Amino acid sequence: MTVPKPPMRDALVAAAFQLFLERGYEQTTVDDIVALAGVGRRSFFRYFPSKEDVVFPDHDRCLADMTEFLGRGDDEHDPVARVCDAARLVLRMYAENPTFSVQRYRLTKKVPGLRTYELSVVWRYERGLAEYLRRRFAGLPDGTLRADVIAAAVVAAHNNGLRSWLRSDGESDASAEVDHALAHVQRTFAPDGSDTPDTRGAGPGEAAAEDVVVLVSRRGAPMWRVVQEIEATLERRPD
Amino acid sequence: MTVPKPPMRDALVAAAFQLFLERGYEQTTVDDIVALAGVGRRSFFRYFPSKEDVVFPDHDRCLADMTEFLGRGDDEHDPVARVCDAARLVLRMYAENPTFSVQRYRLTKKVPGLRTYELSVVWRYERGLAEYLRRRFAGLPDGTLRADVIAAAVVAAHNNGLRSWLRSDGESDASAEVDHALAHVQRTFAPDGSDTPDTRGAGPGEAAAEDVVVLVSRRGAPMWRVVQEIEATLERRPD
Repeated sequence: MTVPKPPMRDALVAAAFQLFLERGYEQTTVDDIVALAGVGRRSFFRYFPSKEDVVFPDHDRCLADMTEFLGRGDDEHDPVARVCDAARLVLRMYAENPTFSVQRYRLTKKVPGLRTYELSVVWRYERGLAEYLRRRFAGLPDGTLRADVIAAAVVAAHNNGLRSWLRSDGESDASAEVDHALAHVQRTFAPDGSDTPDTRGAGPGEAAAEDVVVLVSRRGAPMWRVVQEIEATLERRPD
Repeated sequence: MTVPKPPMRDALVAAAFQLFLERGYEQTTVDDIVALAGVGRRSFFRYFPSKEDVVFPDHDRCLADMTEFLGRGDDEHDPVARVCDAARLVLRMYAENPTFSVQRYRLTKKVPGLRTYELSVVWRYERGLAEYLRRRFAGLPDGTLRADVIAAAVVAAHNNGLRSWLRSDGESDASAEVDHALAHVQRTFAPDGSDTPDTRGAGPGEAAAEDVVVLVSRRGAPMWRVVQEIEATLERRPD
């Protein structure tokens, strides 16, 4: 699923990385990049606000894709499974282009400014996941806290798997690395503490059968009161 | 436990914040700060590499304290409890000086550069916790993954509690906020996966035994949905 991109934008990214690898990031100027790509400075800044941005050309699109993904179909999905799938979208962006991802990984490790830039990108992903979970957990005890903790855990697991793959120079199986890490998170936050992912999350066509009503009452409550509550609860449950 | 600091360093921080509040961060120069503090530019840069650093004057010390804390007495402590205690050291730095912490929180929200700076500080704490846990989990299955996930969860929980306190303008109980958040993490990562009911919904020693729970659920309902409803119901039950 490659979204078509303007060729000039690609040419600028390619020229930039060629120079970063030959001379180093700090020693490369925007003028050098546009000269090699054969375009003017204004073209560069039309696509990239700064030299740092050309190092991470796909994150804005990926963040938008993730937000769109999380915005649809809320109630059909287990919230934790859903944010894990959202993290897999991010992985796909890296895995689509292994050579580029590995080069960037090495570059980012060497240049503190890029490391800081990357932290702010990671933060945007984490906040996107947390905002989705906060919506899903709204009204639950500690909903915000749980949302923030799970979002952080998913991002940490994703990055753990991603880094394993990047350190293998893109030789290992990126999806397997990240699936393994995310499965660990899903088990940790499984509502019933169970290890079996297939008992959780509704499959296709199950959405209508999700109604759950819970009533808690003191033992001393009269039976009519219990029945009344059951009826009232069944009455107001969503269809 | 306040470590004595050179008065000139304190004077520079005080002058900087006075000007940040009066004129705004961007509109204040290092020259303005040193003029108000009555010292020379070189004195400023002896303590702070840049204007950003004066906003976060205590993190280096706090990171060093945390590293030292995690460096001693490894085998006597449960690893997860230990990193939670390390996070409490960071909280203490904030809670020791509520006015300053709240001012800085407001400033950081307004200035994107400071937000990025803060993310890199948070990352250093998270990495410190993860390195400790990686040592403790060395040789265990998925030791590195578990270390990274728990460190991220602890930092997220700490920050969730800290932000609640900061948003209350320092009026709420910082320790109580963060203890509550960290207790959630400790339960989540309890070694035996136990999640005994008395540590969750019900308060100490009461009603739990007297409650009757009625659950109505379609057969196809996913387990996460059932648990979510139970939790929501327990939260809103009358006392």
